[in-house]
Amino acid sequence: MTINVGLSPRIRKTPFHNATLRAGVEAFTVYNKMLLPLTYGDLEGEYRKLTTGVTIWDVSCERQVEVSGPDADACVQFLTARDLSKMKVGQGKYVAMCDHDGRLLNDPVLLKLEDRYWFSIADSDMLMWARAVAAEKGFDVEVCEPDVSPLGIQGPKAEDLVADLFGDWIRELRYFWFKPAELKDIPVVVCRSGWSKQGGFELFLQDSARGDDLWDLVWAAGEKYDIGPAAPNHIERVEGGLLSFGGDNTPDSNPLECGMGGFVDVDTDADYIGKAALQRVVADGPERLFVGLILDGDATGADAWPLEHRTPVRSSAGQEVGTMSAIVDSPVMGKTIGMAQIQRAVVEAGDPVTVESPSGPRTATITQLPFV
Amino acid sequence: MTINVGLSPRIRKTPFHNATLRAGVEAFTVYNKMLLPLTYGDLEGEYRKLTTGVTIWDVSCERQVEVSGPDADACVQFLTARDLSKMKVGQGKYVAMCDHDGRLLNDPVLLKLEDRYWFSIADSDMLMWARAVAAEKGFDVEVCEPDVSPLGIQGPKAEDLVADLFGDWIRELRYFWFKPAELKDIPVVVCRSGWSKQGGFELFLQDSARGDDLWDLVWAAGEKYDIGPAAPNHIERVEGGLLSFGGDNTPDSNPLECGMGGFVDVDTDADYIGKAALQRVVADGPERLFVGLILDGDATGADAWPLEHRTPVRSSAGQEVGTMSAIVDSPVMGKTIGMAQIQRAVVEAGDPVTVESPSGPRTATITQLPFV
Repeated sequence: MTINVGLSPRIRKTPFHNATLRAGVEAFTVYNKMLLPLTYGDLEGEYRKLTTGVTIWDVSCERQVEVSGPDADACVQFLTARDLSKMKVGQGKYVAMCDHDGRLLNDPVLLKLEDRYWFSIADSDMLMWARAVAAEKGFDVEVCEPDVSPLGIQGPKAEDLVADLFGDWIRELRYFWFKPAELKDIPVVVCRSGWSKQGGFELFLQDSARGDDLWDLVWAAGEKYDIGPAAPNHIERVEGGLLSFGGDNTPDSNPLECGMGGFVDVDTDADYIGKAALQRVVADGPERLFVGLILDGDATGADAWPLEHRTPVRSSAGQEVGTMSAIVDSPVMGKTIGMAQIQRAVVEAGDPVTVESPSGPRTATITQLPFV
Repeated sequence: MTINVGLSPRIRKTPFHNATLRAGVEAFTVYNKMLLPLTYGDLEGEYRKLTTGVTIWDVSCERQVEVSGPDADACVQFLTARDLSKMKVGQGKYVAMCDHDGRLLNDPVLLKLEDRYWFSIADSDMLMWARAVAAEKGFDVEVCEPDVSPLGIQGPKAEDLVADLFGDWIRELRYFWFKPAELKDIPVVVCRSGWSKQGGFELFLQDSARGDDLWDLVWAAGEKYDIGPAAPNHIERVEGGLLSFGGDNTPDSNPLECGMGGFVDVDTDADYIGKAALQRVVADGPERLFVGLILDGDATGADAWPLEHRTPVRSSAGQEVGTMSAIVDSPVMGKTIGMAQIQRAVVEAGDPVTVESPSGPRTATITQLPFV
């Protein structure tokens, strides 16, 4: 379901806003106080193009928190619950930023540039967090939000398209690695990244005045691949088990309760915020797990649109044991599937649960993420 | 102009959401990642009821950042660019929260309760800021977001209505002062506050399960005053010169550039973040001022809806000297009026400027806020 939202200076437009209007954008969300296109009116069609062809996404709302200066290495490590000691210039890493009690504050991709870092953030104000920590801790750094706006190119044909634009060197880029480049005279950083499991790149536009130009160049080169406008796709991301920060996790979740255990280092000399709390979570095991749900029966089309709010997950005895944050009909599986945070003991017992889907209560089996 | 926004668990509904739907809400904004009703479809009619009668507002999005514990006094002072040494229990104050460079991060109303404080915040994540500062500074405090959701009752008849509900003692409450109370068995804090210049109260609901009940009780008692559903009213707030944090100020603005000079104490023994930077601003004078604009000619109805984004303000020589963030047709003045941040030298020179209004370029005279 969509609602009417009034535009105002408090909610930022992106450098690609006019291009998305021309491309027929039909719904947005507000993300980091910026507009994020959600769909161009055909979520299933966008899913098909994303999984079989190539799509272009305005993901400018992934704002960058830039840290530079003499103490940048130490400051960025202190902000990040992962050992960064071996990180190379040109490399990106998916990281957890936590508070002093180990609660997950954001799950950005961290990029290490020549003389600075960028946290490419999810939906929470890490600029303020980083500035507070840097100033109070006394790090000699500059923390700012630079003029950088990512444009996503996602899908199995993305690599061919990006190679046409920039050259075959992009085929050698490993996952999350990146290089500065120019397209015509537009400055970008080309990174193999993006919030889908279909492969692709993000072009980090470094001049917001050139949004239309960059969009049009990508679009023109993409016509031979039948490129289409799309957005972070709710169906694909649930199949792929991608965390939607702020939607899938409750505010008190630690990263291990968000499926990020593999990205958190607790046996390390690195000093970072929340380390002691996370060591305790690892020792004791998290209270909840982030899991998939396969609903009994076939996909009916009744549960196709994003949930409006978290709904309870109940045990067979009727007890609330977690909350579900997403539900879709999976084209790959032919099933209705969901994502939920559920008590670890319940997950480990393996019993079926009951969820409140938009079409009513349905029984479901707990499974690991990703689904596919 | 409004856009379609998809509902999702990442954007919170308020305890009064269903009540606002029943009352016919037509547009929202997203504020502190929560829905804030903007209008019930008749902004001018809501303005009339707000300025002559009484209106009910769902302003749950004014979230509370609660600070409690042994060091709460010192921590709250450190977070606040105002001398709090004489603040009493039961008192509220409009305050600036700034970063270490004196940039305005939020303009909450601070409430001092018996054993804790609440920052009733504008649209930025001060929970994270306060937690970062408290932990790094080593304050022995607990910082959380409690289950508290304000319901506004605004307009000249608000006092009679609130007295009917709670008793005549509320007539003695001074501006921004408050008292805990119950309505039937619903726990609330009654505060003489609200984002209008028409007078009124906010009921800080302390149990989100009772949103419908509280709304219905206020509504029933309000029928004899012809109560209507409304929201922070764009026309009234521009006439009244109220700052919309995040819309009227740029991210690098200090409080003196936002019309908050009167709420900032720099000649004080109080220790707070940004004090040295703000002392320099006071000594040198701010670079920009937050001012009113009276557009030449009569109000035409052409410029009645909120601006979609900031637009340039130009000198008669054509130079960009500031940005305009709001424009409305004022019923009281019979004029089109706006709000802008403009270079101090230009304001002091007193020359007319040119603004880009929705109907095209218009000349304007700079004036002080508020207008009325």
